Amino acid sequence: MTYTLVLLRHGESEWNALNLFTGWVDVQLTDKGIAEGKRAGELLKEAGILPDVVYTSLLRRAISTADNALGTADRLWIPVVRDWRLNERHYGDLQGKNKEQVREQYGQEQFMLWRRSYDTPPPPIQPDNEYSQVGDPRYAGIEVPETECLLDVVKRMVPYWEDTISAELRTGKTVLVAAHGNSLRALVKHLDGISDEDISGLNIPTGIPLVYELDENMRPVKAAEYLDPAAAAAGAAAVANQGGK
Amino acid sequence: MTYTLVLLRHGESEWNALNLFTGWVDVQLTDKGIAEGKRAGELLKEAGILPDVVYTSLLRRAISTADNALGTADRLWIPVVRDWRLNERHYGDLQGKNKEQVREQYGQEQFMLWRRSYDTPPPPIQPDNEYSQVGDPRYAGIEVPETECLLDVVKRMVPYWEDTISAELRTGKTVLVAAHGNSLRALVKHLDGISDEDISGLNIPTGIPLVYELDENMRPVKAAEYLDPAAAAAGAAAVANQGGK
Repeated sequence: MTYTLVLLRHGESEWNALNLFTGWVDVQLTDKGIAEGKRAGELLKEAGILPDVVYTSLLRRAISTADNALGTADRLWIPVVRDWRLNERHYGDLQGKNKEQVREQYGQEQFMLWRRSYDTPPPPIQPDNEYSQVGDPRYAGIEVPETECLLDVVKRMVPYWEDTISAELRTGKTVLVAAHGNSLRALVKHLDGISDEDISGLNIPTGIPLVYELDENMRPVKAAEYLDPAAAAAGAAAVANQGGK
Repeated sequence: MTYTLVLLRHGESEWNALNLFTGWVDVQLTDKGIAEGKRAGELLKEAGILPDVVYTSLLRRAISTADNALGTADRLWIPVVRDWRLNERHYGDLQGKNKEQVREQYGQEQFMLWRRSYDTPPPPIQPDNEYSQVGDPRYAGIEVPETECLLDVVKRMVPYWEDTISAELRTGKTVLVAAHGNSLRALVKHLDGISDEDISGLNIPTGIPLVYELDENMRPVKAAEYLDPAAAAAGAAAVANQGGK
């Protein structure tokens, strides 16, 4: 018996299109992002991989991507769970800033350190910054981060995976997780046993379902597969080049 | 302490626009229906009535209306519960049939009996009818009805209200129920103590939030209010006249 897990990174958001660091800022999908979600639903339907339950972050770009995919796959009716632990990495004081401008101001090395190092967070955001989430009612009862590195995301994501998502998988359900570049990188790092060094080279493309077959111990029985491998390779390369010339 | 319950009937669907009996057939919203959901979200936002949790049926016209309203009200992140007991009344063999043609074929009296009598269901649908829901995976483990009268809807809706939705209200949360003309009529009948005879005259307009303030015993402390009373009155009249000349 194996278990089927599908990971889906949200489609293009308005701030992706503007090349801004987004993090926990709750921006809308672009028309392209909406189309990416629908395409993901077509890929799921064609592959006959039909989610029985969907997990999303609390951010609308992931929620809407899940809805667009599930609507297309005729699965809008499945149970829904939303949790902040699936949120994108909090980008601290970089939230709302242009990636290219940050790169030019701080240099390529510092820029890549903030984007891709495992344990160096960006500078903390101040509570009075317009892009801070302090006081947002959706995070009532949660200590909203001031900034996060990927290690911080692993620390919140992996316990949620172990306590909740994997428990759901063990009931035999096909689980869709609709989330973000870095919360999904944290999960993939855990599932595939990627080292702290090597994870910097992993880029997850938007809008293409990534399918894991897991054994009883929640280890992959083979390498996970994108439902559209050619598009996934092109998409991952595009992510890697963000903020570059 | 009072508790706030918001009822929302889905916006116009493709089959509303075609004047077909719909029931459990899972049709899409029209552009007008999408706009109605967004307008409902604006009304909630203007009134400062912000749902903490949303209950929907398993039908996409209710699910999407909830999403459109919550997206507009910046509450897309709230917890979601979906349950078949909030589904529209099953219209039996009338599903997929034109209301005007049914009225002409069977006469006004029989037509109104099927639409508005409390305990006379339409003829049962056959399992091989293309509009039957037998075998639909979303109803796995549920005995799919062959037809329902409003009394049948009361029998499934009221226990769900008492066991689940009202228990959620008692925790102090503002609850949004996004559902259908007849599942909401069943709930309103129960909440307002409307007789089996008088319920036939009650029509719920599409897309306009209906707000209840309930006491500890889940009885209304005053008459429920539509957030746009003028539009609600016009909408209720339009529902009453469906299938008429």
